Amino acid sequence: MLATVLAVGFLYFFFSSPDDAPASKQTLASKDPASNVLSPPSLPFLKSKPDGKQTAPPVVHYHLNNLTTSSTPVENRETVLILTPLAKFYPGYWDNLMKLSYPHDLISLGFIIPKGKEGNLATAALQEQVAKAQGGSKKHRFASVTILRQDTESPLTSQDESERHKLSNQKERRAAMSKARNSLLFTTLGPTTSWVLWLDADIIETPATLIQDLASHNKPIIVPNCYQRYYNGEKKSMDVRAYDFNSWIDSEKAHQLAAAMGKDDILLEGYAEMPTYRMLMAYMVDMQKLDPAREVELDGVGGTALLVKAEVHRDGAMFPPFAFYHLIETEGFAKMAARLGWKSWGLPDYFVSLNPQESEHCVTNHAQVYHYNE
Amino acid sequence: MLATVLAVGFLYFFFSSPDDAPASKQTLASKDPASNVLSPPSLPFLKSKPDGKQTAPPVVHYHLNNLTTSSTPVENRETVLILTPLAKFYPGYWDNLMKLSYPHDLISLGFIIPKGKEGNLATAALQEQVAKAQGGSKKHRFASVTILRQDTESPLTSQDESERHKLSNQKERRAAMSKARNSLLFTTLGPTTSWVLWLDADIIETPATLIQDLASHNKPIIVPNCYQRYYNGEKKSMDVRAYDFNSWIDSEKAHQLAAAMGKDDILLEGYAEMPTYRMLMAYMVDMQKLDPAREVELDGVGGTALLVKAEVHRDGAMFPPFAFYHLIETEGFAKMAARLGWKSWGLPDYFVSLNPQESEHCVTNHAQVYHYNE
Repeated sequence: MLATVLAVGFLYFFFSSPDDAPASKQTLASKDPASNVLSPPSLPFLKSKPDGKQTAPPVVHYHLNNLTTSSTPVENRETVLILTPLAKFYPGYWDNLMKLSYPHDLISLGFIIPKGKEGNLATAALQEQVAKAQGGSKKHRFASVTILRQDTESPLTSQDESERHKLSNQKERRAAMSKARNSLLFTTLGPTTSWVLWLDADIIETPATLIQDLASHNKPIIVPNCYQRYYNGEKKSMDVRAYDFNSWIDSEKAHQLAAAMGKDDILLEGYAEMPTYRMLMAYMVDMQKLDPAREVELDGVGGTALLVKAEVHRDGAMFPPFAFYHLIETEGFAKMAARLGWKSWGLPDYFVSLNPQESEHCVTNHAQVYHYNE
Repeated sequence: MLATVLAVGFLYFFFSSPDDAPASKQTLASKDPASNVLSPPSLPFLKSKPDGKQTAPPVVHYHLNNLTTSSTPVENRETVLILTPLAKFYPGYWDNLMKLSYPHDLISLGFIIPKGKEGNLATAALQEQVAKAQGGSKKHRFASVTILRQDTESPLTSQDESERHKLSNQKERRAAMSKARNSLLFTTLGPTTSWVLWLDADIIETPATLIQDLASHNKPIIVPNCYQRYYNGEKKSMDVRAYDFNSWIDSEKAHQLAAAMGKDDILLEGYAEMPTYRMLMAYMVDMQKLDPAREVELDGVGGTALLVKAEVHRDGAMFPPFAFYHLIETEGFAKMAARLGWKSWGLPDYFVSLNPQESEHCVTNHAQVYHYNE
């Protein structure tokens, strides 16, 4: 079962900095990058004393009452856990990640990679980059990196793109993705995590200030608009198109469709055979006066780049691998969060973009393609 | 909101044992108790080298492909995370915990405690015992102890027992308990955790082999029968009575009740005004031939003492704080696990018992009281 993460490889990266000023015994050192091999994934702990000795009594008390999630996370030194289900390693993803201007010593990374040949290749490529980054300039090092290996292959890898996006395959594919997300989340979230940024493995272009920009809205759940570059044969040039159809405002029609469904059936967005008439954020771009700060309240969200306050997850919001109000994965997550009292928001004029060569997720065979100029 | 765990106090206990044989750099030292302050809650890491120095390259690779959940967990050195929402500290709980014969170096403890005066008292009492245990004989030390403090008071503490068990108060109370359980779970589960044992704070009597006994059935989810000692006025002597009515086999009548309910309403067990005719494990005891190994498959489970394979949680199974198929908390958890393909089991003739003075949870004003001799 994809369910069981056997964590075949658990990688842990660290770097010691014995020349730093020793942290006080009673101070939470979450401000520093992990200084010891023993640091857990999402909890940069106290540095060891330089002489390596522990003093009695054998009790360390961490006062974490400064754990906040605010609109000024850098000033408040809030930690961010970036989680990425990774079936294939895109150099563009890593380059973009490295360019994020959020202080890297406040960022922990978590990856989950399927087993099998493709997963092995992805793991090797990722490891190489991680080793380079964590061994390089202190400024660019992340607080920690966790890599989990599943004990099953991705159901995606055996399918070509057209096959993968078939309506009939979507439920199984997204259920597997949900379990992968849950495994990653449950395993890496720690008591000092303030924010979780879900970032898909094929997101290769975001503003460097992505985290600060999204957090500045101070919303429990917030998602930018994801688009894809592609070669437009008619225009004979590169173009962009809307890509993520999982961020939407609900419709009466969708409710009616759901009401008529079997209890395990799911509503999927972007298929001509199932018109939901939901308002898709993909189509809410206002080209006349692009305002990256414009907010809309959403009922469903996509996971390509999704910032979530850690407390939303701690309350229990996860990615349902089963039909939850006829929704699944990230869309089900938004519904579950709503049941827990947390609202979802989108930024229709704030863009991130994914690898132009191929796609890992979402719906690309959508009948309508929305074109806009950058 | 009870939701947000501000983790006002995060306690971390450790004990160094520099005289132990140094572990190989490439070996997972999950066999040893945490040897360093930096060990995360559920992941006993590699020991530091005795000289405290880190050697290049700054990468440590953990091979965790031996992570199993089996019927012989001691032989396989499987780690257990014991999680307890704790509103009040019962010395009997701690004494019973200390007596568990499962190797303590394989056990991590996690507690979540509400804020406020009662929570402070509970935290102080717990800390005292933890310090004593972790500073004492090596044999009795646990791998790690994590204490989370919520930023809200328990809705229980302001209610007396009769008030607390009123049908109208149950939903709010159990929603708050669900969020506390989720916060504790999401924050402490690590990549090396094999099993999670949910153990309520007022469980004061279990067989010392509780973990081994439950695990020997090799079930995804398994729950013993929870009963309570009390003074029987008629018999003028101490007696025992069934206590946990959350472990049950579903009934057609319950389905009919649910179908007629509003979507946010929940079915509760043990109230005369809402007869469900479910088969309660509490009443399945076979006094003629007590067989502690006898299994029954269940649809709902209680959380007084509940052993769960970590992969069930990693798949996403949590405690719904909202009506999930008209179920909530541990009963909703069993339903959610079922949706994920994991079955729940009960042991009607295997007993644990809770503090006779008062109760923290479940239903005590049940009309029927089942008496049996020990």
